[in-house]
Amino acid sequence: MSEANLLTEWAKLLMRSFADAGITDVVLSPGSRSTPYLIAALREPRLRCYDAIDERGAAFLALGQARWTSRPSLLLCTSGTAAAHYYPAVVEASLARVPLLVVTADRPFELQECAAPQTIDQVKMYGSYARLFLETGMPDAAPTALEALRRMAAQAAFAARWPDPGPVHVNVRARKPLEPRSAQSEREHELARFVRNMRPAPRVSVPRVRAEPSAIADAVQACREARAGLIVCGPLPIQNGHVNRSGVLDLASATRFPLLAEVTSQLRLMKTGEGSGPVFCDAFDRVLASKSFREQHAPDLILQIGGTPTSGAWERYASLHRSTPRIVLAEHGWPDASNAASTMIVGDIAETATAIADGLRTSPRAVTETWVRDFVEANREARSALDAETSGDSRPLTEGRAVRALLARLPSGSALMLGNSLPIRHVESLARTGFVDVLVACQRGANGIDGLVAGTIGTALASSRPTTLLVGDVAFLHDLNSLMLARHVATPVVVVVLNNQGGRIFERLPLATESKATGVTAQELSHVTTPHTLEFGPAVRMFGIAYRCVDSMRELDDALATAYATSVCTVIECRTPPREDAP
Amino acid sequence: MSEANLLTEWAKLLMRSFADAGITDVVLSPGSRSTPYLIAALREPRLRCYDAIDERGAAFLALGQARWTSRPSLLLCTSGTAAAHYYPAVVEASLARVPLLVVTADRPFELQECAAPQTIDQVKMYGSYARLFLETGMPDAAPTALEALRRMAAQAAFAARWPDPGPVHVNVRARKPLEPRSAQSEREHELARFVRNMRPAPRVSVPRVRAEPSAIADAVQACREARAGLIVCGPLPIQNGHVNRSGVLDLASATRFPLLAEVTSQLRLMKTGEGSGPVFCDAFDRVLASKSFREQHAPDLILQIGGTPTSGAWERYASLHRSTPRIVLAEHGWPDASNAASTMIVGDIAETATAIADGLRTSPRAVTETWVRDFVEANREARSALDAETSGDSRPLTEGRAVRALLARLPSGSALMLGNSLPIRHVESLARTGFVDVLVACQRGANGIDGLVAGTIGTALASSRPTTLLVGDVAFLHDLNSLMLARHVATPVVVVVLNNQGGRIFERLPLATESKATGVTAQELSHVTTPHTLEFGPAVRMFGIAYRCVDSMRELDDALATAYATSVCTVIECRTPPREDAP
Repeated sequence: MSEANLLTEWAKLLMRSFADAGITDVVLSPGSRSTPYLIAALREPRLRCYDAIDERGAAFLALGQARWTSRPSLLLCTSGTAAAHYYPAVVEASLARVPLLVVTADRPFELQECAAPQTIDQVKMYGSYARLFLETGMPDAAPTALEALRRMAAQAAFAARWPDPGPVHVNVRARKPLEPRSAQSEREHELARFVRNMRPAPRVSVPRVRAEPSAIADAVQACREARAGLIVCGPLPIQNGHVNRSGVLDLASATRFPLLAEVTSQLRLMKTGEGSGPVFCDAFDRVLASKSFREQHAPDLILQIGGTPTSGAWERYASLHRSTPRIVLAEHGWPDASNAASTMIVGDIAETATAIADGLRTSPRAVTETWVRDFVEANREARSALDAETSGDSRPLTEGRAVRALLARLPSGSALMLGNSLPIRHVESLARTGFVDVLVACQRGANGIDGLVAGTIGTALASSRPTTLLVGDVAFLHDLNSLMLARHVATPVVVVVLNNQGGRIFERLPLATESKATGVTAQELSHVTTPHTLEFGPAVRMFGIAYRCVDSMRELDDALATAYATSVCTVIECRTPPREDAP
Repeated sequence: MSEANLLTEWAKLLMRSFADAGITDVVLSPGSRSTPYLIAALREPRLRCYDAIDERGAAFLALGQARWTSRPSLLLCTSGTAAAHYYPAVVEASLARVPLLVVTADRPFELQECAAPQTIDQVKMYGSYARLFLETGMPDAAPTALEALRRMAAQAAFAARWPDPGPVHVNVRARKPLEPRSAQSEREHELARFVRNMRPAPRVSVPRVRAEPSAIADAVQACREARAGLIVCGPLPIQNGHVNRSGVLDLASATRFPLLAEVTSQLRLMKTGEGSGPVFCDAFDRVLASKSFREQHAPDLILQIGGTPTSGAWERYASLHRSTPRIVLAEHGWPDASNAASTMIVGDIAETATAIADGLRTSPRAVTETWVRDFVEANREARSALDAETSGDSRPLTEGRAVRALLARLPSGSALMLGNSLPIRHVESLARTGFVDVLVACQRGANGIDGLVAGTIGTALASSRPTTLLVGDVAFLHDLNSLMLARHVATPVVVVVLNNQGGRIFERLPLATESKATGVTAQELSHVTTPHTLEFGPAVRMFGIAYRCVDSMRELDDALATAYATSVCTVIECRTPPREDAP
């Protein structure tokens, strides 16, 4: 027989080592098999623990935290299907390159493959979505095993950040009894002493990745020779947002290329100085919606920074000019969904951008003033048109006006989470550069509408800043029970739901717009748009969350002002008509 | 119906794009399903193709090439179990972090799961050992699909090198007819034109990884304060061997820590200058074999560079002093099999070592002269003892004497491949620093004895240098049919087989040495040592390879001189007694 306190000491060592490795946040979901690990996490003073009943929301909460911190939060759940609920967030973490540390409790090996209750095969259950899978095995008093456990904790936390940030899965096991047990016998005291005296987990830090110098030199040359260059910025991480900003702005100033920065790039919702710096084109989605502009303005060089851009107009423009040399600056992965890159430069974004900018300062640029001016003027016109369309009040509220009211109220220094489908597209149209400094979170790894409430709360917890979520009604319903997580927050969390009673983005797809050609009936379409007549008040109030239902800009503005003045979560439901084509 | 030339154009585009991505070497194995891809590879002028009947040897050949070049060689095989023969080399490539690009031909989707001949499930068949798996799908004339194929080629070649070098698996498909087909119809001509006019695959280069500055600063501080520091070097890649050498020698000079560099580190078999540079301890395996030395020389800091060291004596020493702070410098992975690292510094080895050395130059070091002198003197004594044991000639030849004769004959600038088990341990004991400049290849990823003949030939092909393999008889038999690959070589390839008639390393394990305690009988042991009385001449000669069987140092020396004077492969079989304990 082994030491009876072994499981307790093993779990304690694991959680202590995770704390050594820099883990600070733990999201716990209830269950029995995880008991020893849960108690150990609660008793480790360096770990902050949050409860989340639904593992799915728990995982998106952790994802929301890590989007802000770039540090993995630790998820802990019991055995069985519990671990499977983490899967959507694991996939998103993998594709969006957000660190995540998933610890799943498992039963002993002897209960595998014999119909034991709540026992599934958890080994490598996230497949290629996990950057690393570690099976710690049963608690083991061998000094080598104990020392390896320390190493595994450090290694897991590191593998979630390097070389390719993402989810790491650690499967830990326990045999009953699962409850904490202190040392009684001499052998048990010896084990406790051994564990107490063990060194901390090994230290390791994330290195820096510098683009290959000849790739920089080639990019400098290309920028210098371009007469009609463009910089387009797709999603960039919230962490390092300010550092990346300054690098990219440097590059935009040095090249004088029009800067087409989408709202998720951290380069749109920012204050700007005066003078001849970057050429901001904050309405490029509207500018490029013009067929004649697209055709008459062929770029001769595109610099893409960060992820694949979201704008549909950009996609049409870039597709028309797809033979244009395109240099993509990326930190990870291969962000080129249109397969149009001619060169991929891998390395730290800010450092690469600054290095190219530095290389450009010494000699003249070929970029023409006509090219720059055309973009500036078209942008000004597009901006005016957008303003006109969303000015004034109206009842019922339109989505465009709701988004405009929200953008005007966003507190500087706050965080904004954007739901996929229409919310991100509305903000993309309407967000102006120059007025407010907001970091933008989004879920553009797998582009799901899932877990947005939980993710927003996670970001609020991590940032301790006012945090806003703009979300559609379908996405809000999908993650409804994550509202329970709001009890953890201590800063204003404002959830603005655009309730147009269904997934109206589908009505913009050929499925609906070309119903004559496709023969798709309204009845068939309704299974895609899933219309409903729900008002969310009752469910929101059940969770003790402040709630307002608004249908005018004035009401919305008032509700926002009230919400940002509190330190709690508020849900503001904007009743917008199911059918409108206004932005 | 789609264009009849689609498969031909598809395969041509793939191979052209691999060449664009910097692939230069292809190892082909015969089969039908791979026909279009094989023809395309042969017709791409930038690709050098080698035939290898056995896919297992083919994969180790590619591995041997990439060990030298750090560039993936491309493997191409037919469908079915062919791909499974690559698995051992795929595993080694993954663990040793050697790039490898595996292209497996597959049947169309319609032949899956219906008992079609030679059809297996090839999707993700190397599991987590592949850095990336890409399924290209059936040849597809859509421009987006064709452009993606270019991208996949670039991406596959890149993923084999970054961020963690290793194997990449690309599964490609083909429907009959498989033979090349030129354009006939207008649509076919149009496709051929489209492919011909496509841009090259995107360019991408491997960035540089720089250790985090505060980690460097901490290491500098630790080195400065250490009174009894050591540098131990495990396996380091052959590529960059000279760059790493100069970085590590810088660090050794700056610290004055005794340098315990194993033969696979590229820091043993090298010429050295005079003066007060590094403190070489080239017989540390013998020095640390002394229990009293181990006990009386407690280090207060260990710098480990590269992979986990091989030496058993080092392991005992390091295990005794396992609480000593240990800083590990690594480029990839987590090379700390004893779980003893206190700090892991991830980054370019040469740059990290040089940065620490630079940080040390400005102020005094605490390392004591007694500490340094004790290692120098013990090393001198150990070296003399080893020399005495292997001096003179004898008949039958001992393994130690054979290795000594070989080391004395190695041409400067040549490559040496070491088999696992006893060969690497003999060379570890006997190789002196200062006399000859040889780059050393080894198979220390999964430490298998497999594929050594093929791997050596691969290294010879890639390096165009004289290349030597020192191998035991069991490993030689295991890879016997790879001798057929020798027909590709144009430089001397010298295979020295230490034929002691079985796997004698097992006789050094407790299984044999403690037979009284274990009760293992000689008959049982023989199933592990697998003794035999084979002489390899007939099989070697069948492949048209020069062959010598020797049983004295003089004969061996003569055979080596002859072998290195040719440009072909020579197998030299050293008949050594099954039981000897001499080094």
